[in-house]
Amino acid sequence: MIKIGIVGYGNVGRGVESVIKYCKDMEVMGVFTRRDCTCVQTTTKIPVFDITSIYDKKGDFDVLILCGGSANDLPWQSVAIAEHFNIVDSFDTHVKITDHFTHVNEASLKGNHVAIISAGWDPGLFSFYRALGQAVLPQGSNYTFWGTGVSQGHSDAIRRIDGVKDAREYTIPIETAIQRVRNGEYVNLNEAEKHTRECYVVIEEGANKNKIATTIKTMPNYFSGYETTIHFIEEDELKKNHQKMPHGGVVIRNGTTGVNNENKHALECKITLDSNPEFTASILLAYARAAYRLYEEGQRGCKTVFDIAVGYLHEASPQELRKNLL
Amino acid sequence: MIKIGIVGYGNVGRGVESVIKYCKDMEVMGVFTRRDCTCVQTTTKIPVFDITSIYDKKGDFDVLILCGGSANDLPWQSVAIAEHFNIVDSFDTHVKITDHFTHVNEASLKGNHVAIISAGWDPGLFSFYRALGQAVLPQGSNYTFWGTGVSQGHSDAIRRIDGVKDAREYTIPIETAIQRVRNGEYVNLNEAEKHTRECYVVIEEGANKNKIATTIKTMPNYFSGYETTIHFIEEDELKKNHQKMPHGGVVIRNGTTGVNNENKHALECKITLDSNPEFTASILLAYARAAYRLYEEGQRGCKTVFDIAVGYLHEASPQELRKNLL
Repeated sequence: MIKIGIVGYGNVGRGVESVIKYCKDMEVMGVFTRRDCTCVQTTTKIPVFDITSIYDKKGDFDVLILCGGSANDLPWQSVAIAEHFNIVDSFDTHVKITDHFTHVNEASLKGNHVAIISAGWDPGLFSFYRALGQAVLPQGSNYTFWGTGVSQGHSDAIRRIDGVKDAREYTIPIETAIQRVRNGEYVNLNEAEKHTRECYVVIEEGANKNKIATTIKTMPNYFSGYETTIHFIEEDELKKNHQKMPHGGVVIRNGTTGVNNENKHALECKITLDSNPEFTASILLAYARAAYRLYEEGQRGCKTVFDIAVGYLHEASPQELRKNLL
Repeated sequence: MIKIGIVGYGNVGRGVESVIKYCKDMEVMGVFTRRDCTCVQTTTKIPVFDITSIYDKKGDFDVLILCGGSANDLPWQSVAIAEHFNIVDSFDTHVKITDHFTHVNEASLKGNHVAIISAGWDPGLFSFYRALGQAVLPQGSNYTFWGTGVSQGHSDAIRRIDGVKDAREYTIPIETAIQRVRNGEYVNLNEAEKHTRECYVVIEEGANKNKIATTIKTMPNYFSGYETTIHFIEEDELKKNHQKMPHGGVVIRNGTTGVNNENKHALECKITLDSNPEFTASILLAYARAAYRLYEEGQRGCKTVFDIAVGYLHEASPQELRKNLL
């Protein structure tokens, strides 16, 4: 059994705890938290440790799954912990990934461990689809659409507005744009031409709806330029109808071949998720299996989804895979 | 430049010749044929060699792409040639793959080379999608649909019937069945419940249409049990409207997570191809690049799509992949 530890007990951490039952070769040995650990109750009664005790428990875990946030936790946590444990994270700040790789690689090489970073679904599975599409159809274009799904970042941005009590934002791909890409058009689309944004907002009593709506719609980077719809709703309705965390998306590769590029081809990889954190956790566990196997083989340092063959992710042996799935 | 050789100048061999122009790191150095090589004219004027001279040219090629048929050519060609060259093939007789692997592995290890087998789209890309789906959603079901596309095997089977001059068979996935799977139903579908067959048949003068139709519809393994439609057409029409070799298909993984398996997830990978042989050739070239790189790294023996990370398939460096695609 591969002994897994969870660092950070938020949505993804709880997801790992919930989905590990499907992996017969792995078990969770504990959760590390920054909170007062006497107050943290795990769903399946796995032990909770104070994060400060982590280096005393080196022999107890084969791989730690880091479930903190990309903004404030992972940039330093992954680096610090990669020196002492094999780790997997889902670091998702695209523009900072190469720096993150460099730092984690140094730490894991120094400590003689394996680290796999950015192993969620985007970055992660979708990165993988993008690279595969380019590799097999070198002449063509990649398109990525996200949604329909809850964006935590955009929901948080609305919550930070004065007078807003709670909010949920859904990113919705524009079907007509997807259809143009599916039809093989080589279109140049920016994010706002590919997605709309739908917001469900609960305001405090007496707050100014018009002002809040304007603040949302004009917020740079997040909403400005997008077609944004705002629904002011009651707290009860938000709690009742908007607690799930669905998500999804699609990566399309259009390419051509032939003497005169007359033959069109398309690869389309689509995911539809009822629970973004549980699916992310499922991917992290598959890469935790890979981290363990790579470590056992003697490999060291930082890896990404581009470096890891699918056989490492699957519980079955190479012989079984060839027999049953090839 | 990676020096590529083509063994067998049929549809796939010509496909490799046609698509290699998109791979800036590879060039075709020659074609090996069993035919009288003075009669074989290549489209891009690459030299043609008699297959019997192949072992005299060991230093001239980094990787040979074997483009013969799975029924009669590859079972012995891949084994014979793997001892002397790095090779890639698209062996596609599913039930014989494990034997093929064993034989090619022995030969390539003996000769100190790398061989990659079954590296087309099914087996190949689709095998890969199936394994990935199971790895990230261990609780669930896989579904593979093929088409709409020309099946050479079924077309050949019709051509062998007395009184048939020429024929083309299209395998068509049943949309309502795909839709049930997309809706997350766990359905148990046999091949005939997933596909229909549409046949365009040119008969010889005076041949008995009814008898031919009955022979097709009742042919065991190929058509019996399937909803089969037969169109008798003129030779001109076959030549005019049915010369392209389109194909496609979709792999769907449905899975569940959650405390009570309440969350449904789906991964859907779909391909749509104007030219089956050119797309197969494109994949073979990506795996030829991988074979070369693995060989340079000192790896030896037989590999499949399960053993090869996507980074090996892509022309870009690991640094570029992380920067641009992660």
